[in-house]
Amino acid sequence: MLDQLTICAIATSPGMGAIATIRLSGEKALKIADSVFQSPKSKKKLADQKPNTLHFGSVTDENELIDEVVVSIFRTPHSFTGEDVVEITCHGSVYIQQRILQLLISKGARMALPGEFTQRAFLNGKMDLSQAEAVADLIASTNRAAQKVAINQMRGGFSSELSKLRGELLHFIAMIELELDFSEEDVEFADRTQLKNLVSRIEEILRKLKNSFQLGNVIKNGIPVAIVGETNVGKSTLLNALLNEEKAIVSDIHGTTRDVIEDVVNIHGTAFRFFDTAGIRETTDEIETLGIERSYSKLDLATIVILVVDTLNAIEIITERVTKIRSRINDQHLIIAANKSDIGLPETIAALKSLNLLSNEKLVFIAAKQKRNLDELIQEMQHAVSLDSISEDAVIVTNLRHFEALSKALESIERVQIGLDNLISGDFLAQDIRECLYYLGEITGEISNDEILGHIFKNFCIGK
Amino acid sequence: MLDQLTICAIATSPGMGAIATIRLSGEKALKIADSVFQSPKSKKKLADQKPNTLHFGSVTDENELIDEVVVSIFRTPHSFTGEDVVEITCHGSVYIQQRILQLLISKGARMALPGEFTQRAFLNGKMDLSQAEAVADLIASTNRAAQKVAINQMRGGFSSELSKLRGELLHFIAMIELELDFSEEDVEFADRTQLKNLVSRIEEILRKLKNSFQLGNVIKNGIPVAIVGETNVGKSTLLNALLNEEKAIVSDIHGTTRDVIEDVVNIHGTAFRFFDTAGIRETTDEIETLGIERSYSKLDLATIVILVVDTLNAIEIITERVTKIRSRINDQHLIIAANKSDIGLPETIAALKSLNLLSNEKLVFIAAKQKRNLDELIQEMQHAVSLDSISEDAVIVTNLRHFEALSKALESIERVQIGLDNLISGDFLAQDIRECLYYLGEITGEISNDEILGHIFKNFCIGK
Repeated sequence: MLDQLTICAIATSPGMGAIATIRLSGEKALKIADSVFQSPKSKKKLADQKPNTLHFGSVTDENELIDEVVVSIFRTPHSFTGEDVVEITCHGSVYIQQRILQLLISKGARMALPGEFTQRAFLNGKMDLSQAEAVADLIASTNRAAQKVAINQMRGGFSSELSKLRGELLHFIAMIELELDFSEEDVEFADRTQLKNLVSRIEEILRKLKNSFQLGNVIKNGIPVAIVGETNVGKSTLLNALLNEEKAIVSDIHGTTRDVIEDVVNIHGTAFRFFDTAGIRETTDEIETLGIERSYSKLDLATIVILVVDTLNAIEIITERVTKIRSRINDQHLIIAANKSDIGLPETIAALKSLNLLSNEKLVFIAAKQKRNLDELIQEMQHAVSLDSISEDAVIVTNLRHFEALSKALESIERVQIGLDNLISGDFLAQDIRECLYYLGEITGEISNDEILGHIFKNFCIGK
Repeated sequence: MLDQLTICAIATSPGMGAIATIRLSGEKALKIADSVFQSPKSKKKLADQKPNTLHFGSVTDENELIDEVVVSIFRTPHSFTGEDVVEITCHGSVYIQQRILQLLISKGARMALPGEFTQRAFLNGKMDLSQAEAVADLIASTNRAAQKVAINQMRGGFSSELSKLRGELLHFIAMIELELDFSEEDVEFADRTQLKNLVSRIEEILRKLKNSFQLGNVIKNGIPVAIVGETNVGKSTLLNALLNEEKAIVSDIHGTTRDVIEDVVNIHGTAFRFFDTAGIRETTDEIETLGIERSYSKLDLATIVILVVDTLNAIEIITERVTKIRSRINDQHLIIAANKSDIGLPETIAALKSLNLLSNEKLVFIAAKQKRNLDELIQEMQHAVSLDSISEDAVIVTNLRHFEALSKALESIERVQIGLDNLISGDFLAQDIRECLYYLGEITGEISNDEILGHIFKNFCIGK
C-alpha cells in the first residue's frame, strides 16, 4: 500500500511551452501551496478560498521570486483524485517548473509515481479500474478511433456492461448457495432454464468482448499492413503515396531489431502501421528476391496484406503471384492493388476484372504514381477491419489485461454451460460461477491487489 | 494592425502530457467556449459564470464526445491579455489537443500568432513593451540568473528606471520649449546647472544599463568559455568533469557551420557555453597543432579563457605558454588551470605559485581526473563575470533591441552634455533631448509601431 502523503508532479508535457501546470494532491495540498504562494492581497490564504476558483499570485522561495502564477483549487471529494487538489500554472520555462517542483517537495510534498493521481482516483472510488486504465489510453490516443474507444471506456461503457453481467450472475449464485444450504431437501431456487439462458447470454457477450480485442488492439496500436509484390511493380511509390496522404502523421518506429522499421500513419482518423517498410524502400533491381522473401516472412504479423501487381504484366504472371500469396496467408485480408492501371495492358485489366476473389479478398485498380484511386484502396483497408462500423457507444476491448481476464471468465462460464448440460450439482456450478465473477471483478477492480495495481499504474505517465 | 478576433492556441508544451491547456482570448471567448462545452448540469452556460472560476464538463463536436475537460474563466480586464480569456484543460493526447483546437477554429476563433496573447496584453495596457519581452525571456530561461533578470524585468524593474528618467527629462524639455516661446525675451526657465546635473545622471545610468548588456547577454545565452592548452595536459578530462558537474544540463548546439559544436551547461545556476568542444574532444596526439590553432582562432569569442597547463612540465614550458596566450587575448578573463597538481613536479608548482598574475588573471591548481578543486575553478569562472554579485533587484539589459535603443539614447544625451558645455541654444538642446526621449520610449513601447511590434512578437512561442 502506498502512503497517503501529498504528491506533486508536472502534469503538462515536459519541455518548454507558454505555460506549464504542476499538480498537488492530498490532505496538505492547500497548506503546502500556501507555504510558497503569495497573493497580491497580502493576507489571502488559499486554504480559505472556495473550491473551483482561480487565484493570481506569485511563488517565492524564502524571499526569492520564482514566478507569477495562477493557482486552481479543487476540494475533496469533487476533484480528479477525490482529494484536495491544487494546480499551479506557471510560465513554461523548464527551469521554473523544476524550481517550483523542488520547492513543493522541500515543503513536504512527495514526487508522484507514474499514474499515482489516477490510482488515487481509483482508490477513492472516483472511477473503477477499467476507467482508470482508459485515462492512460485516452492520453496516448493518436487517432480518432483510439480516442473514441478510450473515452467511451473512461465514461464507463465497458464497466457498465460487465457490472450488469456480474449483477445477474450474483443473483444466481445467491440462489444456488441457498440451494446448498437446503441441500438435504433437494429444492431448486435457481431456475435452471433461466440460468442456462443467462449463461448463454453471458457467454455470447464475453465472446463478443474477447473477439473485439483484435480490433481494439489495432485501434490502439495501428492496423498492421504488409505491402508485398515483385520489384518494380510500384510498392515503394504506393507506400510513399499513402504516407503522404492528407498531411498524414508519419513516424518511424524502431523495432526490437534494427532491421524492422515501421511507419505509422493516420489516414482519415485511422492509424495504419506499415511494417518492414525499410525492406520496401531498399528494394532495387539487384536485391530483388531477398527483399520479397523478407516481406513474405512478416506476413503473419499483418492484418491486411496489400499485394501490388503490375497491369503491364501478362495476366499469367499476376495470377501466379496471387496463387503464391494465397498459399502464404491465413485469415488476413488480402487487397490486390492492380497498379499502373492508367497505362496497363487492356487484356490484363479485363482478365483481372473477371478474377475469382475469395471472401477475404478485394481488388482495387490504382495508379500509385498519379495517386489515382488511393481513396478506394484506403476505404477497403478500413473496411477490412470494420473500423467504419465502430459506433459511438461501441464496447471494444483494447487492453491486454482485460483480454486475458475476459478469456478466463469465458472459460469459466463455458464450464458452467457444460455443467448445466450435464446436470452437475450446485456446488460445482457455484465454483465456476464464482471464478467467472472473480475475473470479471478483476477488470473493473472490484477484485484487486497491490501487485495488479502497481503493474497497471507503472505504465502511466507521471503527472496523471 | 492586427484584427480583434478571438484567438486560440495550445499554451502548454507541445507533445503528450497528462494534461494540456488550450487558451482562448477575445470578445467571443466565452461564446465560442460555450458552443463546444457541455456541463453535467445541462443548462449551465460559461458566459453566465463568475470570473476566476473552474468548471468541469465535456467538449463535444456535434454529438461526438471529444474529451472531459476543466474550463478556467477569466474576465476583462482582469486577465493576462486584458480580454475575456477561457482556458480549456483537456487530457494531454496530441490528437485531442488538435481536435479541440480545430473545433474552436470552426466555431469562429482564429489561430493565434506567436506571442499574440502577450501582444494583446501590451496593447491593452496590461504591461509595457519591455515587460512583454521579459515574458518570452522568462519562458526561455534555463538557469537561475536568466530567470532572476527576466522576472525582475517582467515585474517592471527596467521600465520604472527608464520611466523615472523620461519623466525628469520631460520636465526639462517643457521648460526649454517654454523658453523658445519666449525666445525674444531671453529668459531661462530651465536651470542650466540643474539640467547639467540631470544630464550627467542620465548619462551615467544609461551607460551603466548599456554596459550591463554584456553581462545580460551572457546570462541569457551562457558565458562563452574557451578551454585551451597543449595536447595531453588534460583539456578533455577537464571539460568532461565540468560537464558532468552537478547533474549538469548538457546540450549540443550546432552552430552555423557544422564544425562548431558548443556544450551549454548549467553549473550552480549559471549557464556556461563551452565552445569548439568538438575540437577539444577530437584532439589526439597526431593532430596536435591543428587542434590548438583552431582553439586559438576562437579566443575572441570567449569571455573566459581557461588555459590548462600540466604541472608535470618544467616551469619554462608553462611560462612560455602563458606568454603566448597573453599575446593572443585582449580583455578576456584568463584562468590558468594548473592540472595534475596531485602528481605535479614540486618545483613547477612552487614556481607557479610565485608567478606574477595580471589583473584579469587567476591561477587555480586542479586535478581534473580526480575532480579535485573544480569548485574553486567554477567559483573563479563565476567571479570573472560578476554573476555572484547580481542582486535581487539588479537592472540588467539582456535584450539586443534595448541595448541598441539605449546606445542611441546615450549618444543623444552625450550630445546634450556637449551642447550644454558649449552653451548652444535651447532649440538644438531640445532636439537632442527629444531624440533621447524617443529612444527611451521605444524600449517601453511608449513609442512603437506595427513593424517594431511584429518583429518583437514573431519570436515568441505560439500560445503566449
